[in-house]
Amino acid sequence: MTQLESARAGIITAQMAQVAADEGRSTEYIRQGVADGTIVIPANVNHKNLKATGVGLGLKTKVNANIGTSTDCGNIQSEEEKLQTAIEAGAHAVMDLSTGGNLTQIRRRIIEQSSVMIGTVPIYQAGCLAIEKYGAIIKMTEEDLFEAISEHCADGVDFITVHCGVTRQAVKRLKEQGRITNITSRGGSIMAAWMELHDKENPLYQQYDRLLAIAKEYDVTLSLGDAMRPGCLADGSDRAQIEELITLGELVKRAKNYGVQVMVEGPGHLPMDQIEANIKMQKSLCENAPFYILGPLVTDIAAGYDHITSAIGGAIAAAAGADFLCYVTPAEHLALPDTQDVHDGVVASLIAGHAADIVKGIPGAMERDIKMSKARAALDWQTQAELALDPVRFKQVHNARVTHTENACSMCGQFCAIKMADDYLKK
Amino acid sequence: MTQLESARAGIITAQMAQVAADEGRSTEYIRQGVADGTIVIPANVNHKNLKATGVGLGLKTKVNANIGTSTDCGNIQSEEEKLQTAIEAGAHAVMDLSTGGNLTQIRRRIIEQSSVMIGTVPIYQAGCLAIEKYGAIIKMTEEDLFEAISEHCADGVDFITVHCGVTRQAVKRLKEQGRITNITSRGGSIMAAWMELHDKENPLYQQYDRLLAIAKEYDVTLSLGDAMRPGCLADGSDRAQIEELITLGELVKRAKNYGVQVMVEGPGHLPMDQIEANIKMQKSLCENAPFYILGPLVTDIAAGYDHITSAIGGAIAAAAGADFLCYVTPAEHLALPDTQDVHDGVVASLIAGHAADIVKGIPGAMERDIKMSKARAALDWQTQAELALDPVRFKQVHNARVTHTENACSMCGQFCAIKMADDYLKK
Repeated sequence: MTQLESARAGIITAQMAQVAADEGRSTEYIRQGVADGTIVIPANVNHKNLKATGVGLGLKTKVNANIGTSTDCGNIQSEEEKLQTAIEAGAHAVMDLSTGGNLTQIRRRIIEQSSVMIGTVPIYQAGCLAIEKYGAIIKMTEEDLFEAISEHCADGVDFITVHCGVTRQAVKRLKEQGRITNITSRGGSIMAAWMELHDKENPLYQQYDRLLAIAKEYDVTLSLGDAMRPGCLADGSDRAQIEELITLGELVKRAKNYGVQVMVEGPGHLPMDQIEANIKMQKSLCENAPFYILGPLVTDIAAGYDHITSAIGGAIAAAAGADFLCYVTPAEHLALPDTQDVHDGVVASLIAGHAADIVKGIPGAMERDIKMSKARAALDWQTQAELALDPVRFKQVHNARVTHTENACSMCGQFCAIKMADDYLKK
Repeated sequence: MTQLESARAGIITAQMAQVAADEGRSTEYIRQGVADGTIVIPANVNHKNLKATGVGLGLKTKVNANIGTSTDCGNIQSEEEKLQTAIEAGAHAVMDLSTGGNLTQIRRRIIEQSSVMIGTVPIYQAGCLAIEKYGAIIKMTEEDLFEAISEHCADGVDFITVHCGVTRQAVKRLKEQGRITNITSRGGSIMAAWMELHDKENPLYQQYDRLLAIAKEYDVTLSLGDAMRPGCLADGSDRAQIEELITLGELVKRAKNYGVQVMVEGPGHLPMDQIEANIKMQKSLCENAPFYILGPLVTDIAAGYDHITSAIGGAIAAAAGADFLCYVTPAEHLALPDTQDVHDGVVASLIAGHAADIVKGIPGAMERDIKMSKARAALDWQTQAELALDPVRFKQVHNARVTHTENACSMCGQFCAIKMADDYLKK
């Protein structure tokens, strides 16, 4: 039985118990959320060393780090390093998006070494094989795609991105819309281009039950991809995007009826004032399924710093109800991220998620800030470092620049406001 | 005449014309805003090489970089370097917050070398002198404080932070409140501690007209400091903070009546869901005077990355109407910032301001993102670099990791969605 089927049968699985313990929620809260489909626990029966994590309503906002080779960069070692970096920095999930080298080998090594949930985009593997077999990604067959999906699921992948909602109707609406950046989802562009070239409906939509059967066998959570996500602010919340979202809502319902866990992916690039509306719309159209978002980036001009544009959008989105943030690294729009980019991307997303968790009232979130603030008021640097999101960085910056004023830091020295207030303004 | 007096007399000054040209607004729009006090143009008559910049309603969100020595770190050279770094990164203002070394010499060198407006906190100089003369900051006299203010104004400082609103009543409310972090404003803590020790009212409040007369002589803009700004999320929007804000509103009115330009400083640390309310409250209580904010930081646990927590809060605040963002660097809460921190802090705040300007409908803001997105869709890397917030960083990351796929980047290589969509999904 999948986690969803178990929850509906009233069973508390080991994974639900783990999630409840981690989140400070009752096991019944978790079971009910999984049964309702407002919480997913991506946990492939074949991912042996996984520590189960929940994603959804009332839980801590989770962060995913994308790693993986490209046709230009990366090898197994570099991606294994990125995996460790992401986990150490605090990522709750890692997606292997490899498109270069021996994909099967890389994926299996990553699953084997990961205690956090692993996601993939199987169409990339089908695309790589199509380049080898037929000379072009676009020449892949429907069977190639389903074979890749089956292989990923059997290997132990916990969630897969599948662009099931990019229907012919959605592509028609895209063309009628007229966009600046067309499609910028990699998997989505392959799917849509394939449909155009072969004059066929999306096989993942048309044979959705076949997909559900594969996912159910291993309890793989479907992450319904948003092929039509806006690639720039000007394309935000347009008819193509919302057309696809409506379809994703229908597919959420079918997945749940089938006993398959499901979440929905979202934008992308959005002006700040459209973010909350996007989250509310997704929740409404998709029966409150967990929402997994990429960004949203709140400006298009900051390449080199898109972990920051994404942290701004991600915090607003998470505060409005988004459950799962896919990190964006400083290398986004420019190059394949390196290990430092991976670290910085995870930290930026964790900040966004935590800031949102405070206002969402997630158990324990505000308490940590209060503890930190008390340590700060006491000029207790050791406790501050321990409570910091990144204790290594904390100590590095603090210790590098010496102070001669007891307990103060080098920024204020003798002008330390806390010492001044302590001396003269005690209550 | 000050800019404010000129505006009221119907005169378009050279500074107003400069601001109008930079902002894509009519000179009459700027004149009216200055006359109403919703726009300030901090421009000391003695700051000779200043390029005038406007701050306020309907104008681009501005960014300030704090530099300056501490009692532990820094010298003239290092602060001159930070000044240049801040200006090159795009800061619209720089505050010299020096508290170590020869303050007068540092300040004069910085004013001399700065084309952007310069702000200071004169009480720091009075504090330094008091250490020299009497052995303790707290022993400064009222005359020491006014002398420091006069010297800063005569030297050509464009705006000064003065903590006029920390009255005995505000301190009483602070004590009745009971806070985790008491006062964390440096100048505010000195002022409040001084009042307690000497059992006197705040001289900047009591002799406010004397302060106004000095400011008016050089057309120095008052930046009414928020001594009671929350130093942690838990202290946000409390009675002490709002008590001071009410007084600042009264002082705004008096400054405007006197013909002195004035803006108001704001928090600080705030949970995300209190930010908009803070901005609206300031605007309402302070007759829509420009609002100059520090952060707000949306979590207390991310020291080492507080440029990011501040960018999140700053973007939300600016979108809600804040006009001027004081940057926060990655070194905040840990150490005096170095040159790299200054650069990174400016960029993060510029991102926040620009993201907000898009949704505030500031002329030209969205247009830049559209141009960038068109260049991105055309895979035109040269134009993208030119339009980027930081072209140097853009090229550095993009060029460091080579690609073998024409026009693509190393992230996607042959899986470039834009190429795929171009080939098969042209409208």
